[in-house]
Amino acid sequence: MPFQFESVLVTGSSRGIGFEMVRQLANLSCPPKYIFASCRSPDGEAAKELRDFASEHSNVIIIQLDALSNDSIQKSAVLVKEKLDNDGLDLIVNNAGILTRSPNFLDVTEEDMMRVYKTNVVGPFQVIQAYHSLLAKAGQKKDFAAILNISGTLGSCEKSNFGGLYPYAISKAGMNRMTKGLSCELIRDNIMIMCICPGWVRTALGGLDKARLSPQESVENIVKIIESMDKDKNGIYCNNTGQIIPW
Amino acid sequence: MPFQFESVLVTGSSRGIGFEMVRQLANLSCPPKYIFASCRSPDGEAAKELRDFASEHSNVIIIQLDALSNDSIQKSAVLVKEKLDNDGLDLIVNNAGILTRSPNFLDVTEEDMMRVYKTNVVGPFQVIQAYHSLLAKAGQKKDFAAILNISGTLGSCEKSNFGGLYPYAISKAGMNRMTKGLSCELIRDNIMIMCICPGWVRTALGGLDKARLSPQESVENIVKIIESMDKDKNGIYCNNTGQIIPW
Ligand SMILES: NC(=O)c1ccc[n+]([C@@H]2O[C@H](COP(=O)([O-])OP(=O)(O)OC[C@H]3O[C@@H](n4cnc5c(N)ncnc54)[C@H](OP(=O)(O)O)[C@@H]3O)[C@@H](O)[C@H]2O)c1
Ligand SMILES: NC(=O)c1ccc[n+]([C@@H]2O[C@H](COP(=O)([O-])OP(=O)(O)OC[C@H]3O[C@@H](n4cnc5c(N)ncnc54)[C@H](OP(=O)(O)O)[C@@H]3O)[C@@H](O)[C@H]2O)c1
Repeated sequence: MPFQFESVLVTGSSRGIGFEMVRQLANLSCPPKYIFASCRSPDGEAAKELRDFASEHSNVIIIQLDALSNDSIQKSAVLVKEKLDNDGLDLIVNNAGILTRSPNFLDVTEEDMMRVYKTNVVGPFQVIQAYHSLLAKAGQKKDFAAILNISGTLGSCEKSNFGGLYPYAISKAGMNRMTKGLSCELIRDNIMIMCICPGWVRTALGGLDKARLSPQESVENIVKIIESMDKDKNGIYCNNTGQIIPW
Repeated sequence: MPFQFESVLVTGSSRGIGFEMVRQLANLSCPPKYIFASCRSPDGEAAKELRDFASEHSNVIIIQLDALSNDSIQKSAVLVKEKLDNDGLDLIVNNAGILTRSPNFLDVTEEDMMRVYKTNVVGPFQVIQAYHSLLAKAGQKKDFAAILNISGTLGSCEKSNFGGLYPYAISKAGMNRMTKGLSCELIRDNIMIMCICPGWVRTALGGLDKARLSPQESVENIVKIIESMDKDKNGIYCNNTGQIIPW
């Protein structure tokens, strides 16, 4: 039986993979009751498409959440809890992320290392902390609640046989380790967690010309991954077709 | 032929594994000409044993280096360069590191996440940036120059089947990913790099009662690892007896 989720939070849903995820989830034949589409600046230019989409889909609720601000993460969880009334939250997609580029490893700055880590690892960790009680509540009523961390193959030590993109690559390895550790701890609350690579996707982050997949193609696969989520997948790291990636 | 190094920098050598490393390297039958023993506070109480030891070994030179301050890292490299005159630096042991504990994942603070990452990942990365030209100079004259990153088995996603110690475990996974990436880039300058777990060692960090190895036993093994360093080990992750650890 596919994973049935009535409520989902997607972070970083102003554009790219996150926005496409919200779009496809809202267009499922049996869509979730609540799609919390979080973004940094709900009123800003960057969220215009999302606002337009939400205005046509009453189950899409835009929530302010900046991965760099634990305060905003906490506040978002309070709002989501109110909306859910007495229900738990079934699914989180930790998607928000950034990548920085430097010509050479000598040019990597401390500022880049720290900001990318904070956005890609600490933010997602704090989202899980802030929403833990809501996930646990869902886990009590259903087979399980779930967290999908959007990582990347660049986080794999085994697969990456090239240098460069250090702040990002290190952050995704960190996200993978966080996923593995939490998978051992959260399963006691009936919360499963896994991490995936969405593939190389034509977005601002992935680059708009060379990347192989359109957001639509990538997210079609990720939605299948979500529907196939189950406790026996707890703690895995896979690509968008479900193939295990070595750490 | 064992790896011949005439100069070595050991970070975090005020105590624990770092201090024992300096002690054993100085007592080798054919000791390095320069052992740069770096610590945060060369004049502080914590470095008393190191100062006493250095006063009896003219090749042990105490250097101020705080992994949390890129400025201090840069300054240390200037001092080391002066001392080495026209020679390069043969070996760096990135050993300085910290661990924080929290009763539960909900208690992990942003401050801990950021400080542990900065100390255990960003600091070692900046050490490699700051000393790169000195390592490259050694790499030009010899078979290779080398970097040994002191990681830990807790950084392994594959081996760690438990939660907890998130800031630390994530940082060591990050250090592993950094090592793998840099191994692909630095080898062009004839600099090899690898990461190891020293084992569970009786130090302030490892805990003084339960840990299995004395600093002496652990470092005896690490010194053997150093002596066996070679370009065919570039990019590996192993324990203190040289056994590969899955990432
Ligand atoms: N594209 C690829 O090829 C690829 C490959 C592997 C993994 N990934 C991963 O996929 C995820 C989505 O990336 P994408 O390709 O869709 O990139 P994208 O088009 O650049 O979108 C990134 C999203 O993250 C949001 N974001 C950035 N910083 C944020 C912060 N501090 N707080 C909240 N949201 C923030 C952005 O929102 P704003 O509008 O507010 O900036 C945007 O919605 C990332 O985790 C990325 O690492 C992508
Ligand atoms: N012990 C174990 O069981 C174990 C297991 C796996 C890995 N390791 C790794 O082994 C390495 C050494 O640990 P240890 O067991 O010897 O621990 P330790 O006895 O606590 O020593 C840590 C050393 O790092 C230094 N340090 C801490 N923060 C620093 C900073 N900001 N800048 C510069 N130096 C700093 C400390 O210097 P101060 O005197 O200035 O504080 C001290 O010399 C660490 O990387 C650790 O993660 C240890």
